[in-house]
Amino acid sequence: MKIMIVNNKRLSSTMEMGDKVALALHRMGVEVLIDSSSADITSEPFEAIIVLGGDGTMIRTARQYADRNVPVLGVNMGTVGFLSNIRADEFDRYLQPFVNGDFTLEERMLQEISVFQGNCLIDRLLSLNEVSIKSRAARTISLEVKIEGHPHGIYRGDGLIVATPSGSTGYSLSCGGPIIDPVLDAFVLTPISSYKLNKRPLVVAADKQIEIKPRDGEQYYVAVDGQVCTNIKDDGLVHIKKADRGLKLAIVKPRFFFETMEERLQRDQNG
Amino acid sequence: MKIMIVNNKRLSSTMEMGDKVALALHRMGVEVLIDSSSADITSEPFEAIIVLGGDGTMIRTARQYADRNVPVLGVNMGTVGFLSNIRADEFDRYLQPFVNGDFTLEERMLQEISVFQGNCLIDRLLSLNEVSIKSRAARTISLEVKIEGHPHGIYRGDGLIVATPSGSTGYSLSCGGPIIDPVLDAFVLTPISSYKLNKRPLVVAADKQIEIKPRDGEQYYVAVDGQVCTNIKDDGLVHIKKADRGLKLAIVKPRFFFETMEERLQRDQNG
Amino acid sequence: MKIMIVNNKRLSSTMEMGDKVALALHRMGVEVLIDSSSADITSEPFEAIIVLGGDGTMIRTARQYADRNVPVLGVNMGTVGFLSNIRADEFDRYLQPFVNGDFTLEERMLQEISVFQGNCLIDRLLSLNEVSIKSRAARTISLEVKIEGHPHGIYRGDGLIVATPSGSTGYSLSCGGPIIDPVLDAFVLTPISSYKLNKRPLVVAADKQIEIKPRDGEQYYVAVDGQVCTNIKDDGLVHIKKADRGLKLAIVKPRFFFETMEERLQRDQNG
Amino acid sequence: MKIMIVNNKRLSSTMEMGDKVALALHRMGVEVLIDSSSADITSEPFEAIIVLGGDGTMIRTARQYADRNVPVLGVNMGTVGFLSNIRADEFDRYLQPFVNGDFTLEERMLQEISVFQGNCLIDRLLSLNEVSIKSRAARTISLEVKIEGHPHGIYRGDGLIVATPSGSTGYSLSCGGPIIDPVLDAFVLTPISSYKLNKRPLVVAADKQIEIKPRDGEQYYVAVDGQVCTNIKDDGLVHIKKADRGLKLAIVKPRFFFETMEERLQRDQNG
Repeated sequence: MKIMIVNNKRLSSTMEMGDKVALALHRMGVEVLIDSSSADITSEPFEAIIVLGGDGTMIRTARQYADRNVPVLGVNMGTVGFLSNIRADEFDRYLQPFVNGDFTLEERMLQEISVFQGNCLIDRLLSLNEVSIKSRAARTISLEVKIEGHPHGIYRGDGLIVATPSGSTGYSLSCGGPIIDPVLDAFVLTPISSYKLNKRPLVVAADKQIEIKPRDGEQYYVAVDGQVCTNIKDDGLVHIKKADRGLKLAIVKPRFFFETMEERLQRDQNG
Repeated sequence: MKIMIVNNKRLSSTMEMGDKVALALHRMGVEVLIDSSSADITSEPFEAIIVLGGDGTMIRTARQYADRNVPVLGVNMGTVGFLSNIRADEFDRYLQPFVNGDFTLEERMLQEISVFQGNCLIDRLLSLNEVSIKSRAARTISLEVKIEGHPHGIYRGDGLIVATPSGSTGYSLSCGGPIIDPVLDAFVLTPISSYKLNKRPLVVAADKQIEIKPRDGEQYYVAVDGQVCTNIKDDGLVHIKKADRGLKLAIVKPRFFFETMEERLQRDQNG
Repeated sequence: MKIMIVNNKRLSSTMEMGDKVALALHRMGVEVLIDSSSADITSEPFEAIIVLGGDGTMIRTARQYADRNVPVLGVNMGTVGFLSNIRADEFDRYLQPFVNGDFTLEERMLQEISVFQGNCLIDRLLSLNEVSIKSRAARTISLEVKIEGHPHGIYRGDGLIVATPSGSTGYSLSCGGPIIDPVLDAFVLTPISSYKLNKRPLVVAADKQIEIKPRDGEQYYVAVDGQVCTNIKDDGLVHIKKADRGLKLAIVKPRFFFETMEERLQRDQNG
Repeated sequence: MKIMIVNNKRLSSTMEMGDKVALALHRMGVEVLIDSSSADITSEPFEAIIVLGGDGTMIRTARQYADRNVPVLGVNMGTVGFLSNIRADEFDRYLQPFVNGDFTLEERMLQEISVFQGNCLIDRLLSLNEVSIKSRAARTISLEVKIEGHPHGIYRGDGLIVATPSGSTGYSLSCGGPIIDPVLDAFVLTPISSYKLNKRPLVVAADKQIEIKPRDGEQYYVAVDGQVCTNIKDDGLVHIKKADRGLKLAIVKPRFFFETMEERLQRDQNG
């Protein structure tokens, strides 16, 4: 058996933890691969992933390894996080069950974002949390939205977010969006500082496809999970659909989303 | 074939329209039943329902005839409405197709609301839009919420709404809730004037059951679809689950929810 | 010199503290009057007030003794409060300065609320925080608002709040209102669960008079500071203006509103 | 007598209107100056200004000519606007009264914005509507706010707006701010997409000074009235105070702000 450990090169605590986990896995007869940065993505096969870090590291993992379709165990290293299952100090207790396959899977929906300029596909990305389209300048922009090919309306303001249920506790929440049950297959469209006061967040079934098209001569950027950023102009187009594969979170320690949600949110707000 | 016509006794225009529809149906060889008020619910069988009126009449129809499990065609009589499919002036064109069965079905989720006082079930109701639990006095109340048996948290303020996707464009929207795609099986929990500023609307998959329990010595009322009202005291309990059967809207004239949504909302706001 | 002590008969801690304060004042040669409930309002003269308790006791004090026009020192008894100046454990340090007149005054605006039924004045009240007009049933109501005699618009929904700057951190905040600098002479009009999505809180200079008139056949209640409640019918009218006298808070321990605001709000939210 | 006409070179309708107004003024024996762009600011003296255009042209006029301290008549050229007093088609009726001095003055507060980088003043601007400090990238920023020299708190999110009462119906409103009576001397601090859910708009008396300081290593921009933009880095500082002089709106046709507000807002939303 082979397990990939993903950690954050910039945090020495996660690097140390990575060594500890690798050693423990070796003793269990498990081979270990280590990914400490977004640069060194391996092509080797492996059967599971352990993510040491917060939601940021998990987001990168989802984007890079979703096509591997293997269980991912999130270990919280002290920072706050909605996606990790256990804390670092619970590690000794839960590593062996994870290796033995004693866990359930909680699948988190991913979005597939395609960015076009003119008729040219210039970027295709997976997103665990959200994509947002915003102006690059201090001006109001207008975005034309189609849902499943039907015209839905114009959003005028600072921009628009399309978030997954996982992303509903992130940037979308700051902009007035609701919190979405992670088991639902849905997008939430949340306007950013809408010029029209009666524009409200919209929860759309994820089997529908969404198209967002800039309407005026401004420059726009497309931000995915707050990490990746692409610039487009007014003949750009962003296409969003549910990705074929989700993120498979391994749950070694049972929890109930709505029971822990408020506490996680509270920590996140104060942290 | 037999069709039930539901209209609103208080509006003479719908009564006249009822006569016109009944005559047209007779000419097509269809038998007609008429329900003009909440009092005279028939036990006769029938194969379809035509509702003449706005969302209020549709809500009453859903509550009274959901167990009949027959298609319901909504005819808008001039007032605004999200649930009607055609306008009165489109009637001549679409009646025959409806009678012929030339329509698709759009199922709208209903909630089953059970109200307990002590251990005693005092009311059980179907709801198309929402149930709200509020104080009967000018005081803040505290409501304890469980989701699928797990403690979720305390809501303190003017009360709490649990709405269906159909209800998401109603009272829940006034309280800051999102608009929900009608094809989703979900509840939206929307706090009313929440004392805690960080309480936000929550979209919960409808296979989960929700329990709401008053926590202090106030008197509460439970309002269903803004029409039916039950009082409870602090040992009361409201239990909400998805009803076994939904409302089967007949769609004789195709439309796309997100395309007409904004226009319907706009008319509703100004109306 | 004579000082009135106002406390809360229902809390034994404030009753004990009352005795302690009375004893300390006697030793300083100050006469003491005690008001432990809303029933026993004295007509005796006195030169200052000490309030032992939270904002609720302060609100009652403002309503009952505003016409005395004397300084009021608020002593926080453990509960949260925006209006108290010192905590119970700081009492020994600040009592003598208070008696000596070593304090500044911070005047808090009061509202004078007049409630009419038909042409008949049925109630006139002072309010430190807010007046709210709401439906007594589970139905949307419509309220017609005039500002300085000019028609301003119709508010449709659960009702309307008119709050003072002091009240802006209370019920108005729960309904989406802004926080207002206590030195400003202003009302904030905050709609409660507005049916129209584009209705927003409005900050109006307090030299303007406000009139609120129910528009339909519902029954309404008028709640003042969440404590006093009057019922009106559809020929009722509520008239709000700035009161001639404000509440004179004695500041023995300097503080800056915007520095302590967030902390006070945080404690209040969690308390 | 000499009057300055300010119009918008890019709109031929305002240029034509400018010629018409100039001719009418000449016939009344009034000398005319014309300012058709932000470039040609004259040093000649004049006694009044006529602005042909919407709020954008008025904003530019306020910034460029506030120190002239002369009455400004706003003529609405079809676009929406809160600051214009008359429509183009009312012009014939109201020009003579304006020239005769038959008007009242409504003073609108201006802000003086000073932008520092390190200890260096890099920009000083007048603002009629608002100043906003935002991130130049797709990342959350943290802003430290002092009010009258006292620490007030940290704003984390997309940024922060400080608006005047005139600006309260603009960008601040899109971000959840209240509408402020134009006669009040107040700032409204409105967070943009706040990370902390319990951050709320704050109305601060305008005799207080406000300082906003970036806290982390991002690049920021400072936008004034949506027109002028300055970049700062993390050792930047923005200082806001009430300007010594306001904009003196000439009111030839009486109106009441709260009576016309809703209609103007509605047109603005749909326009």
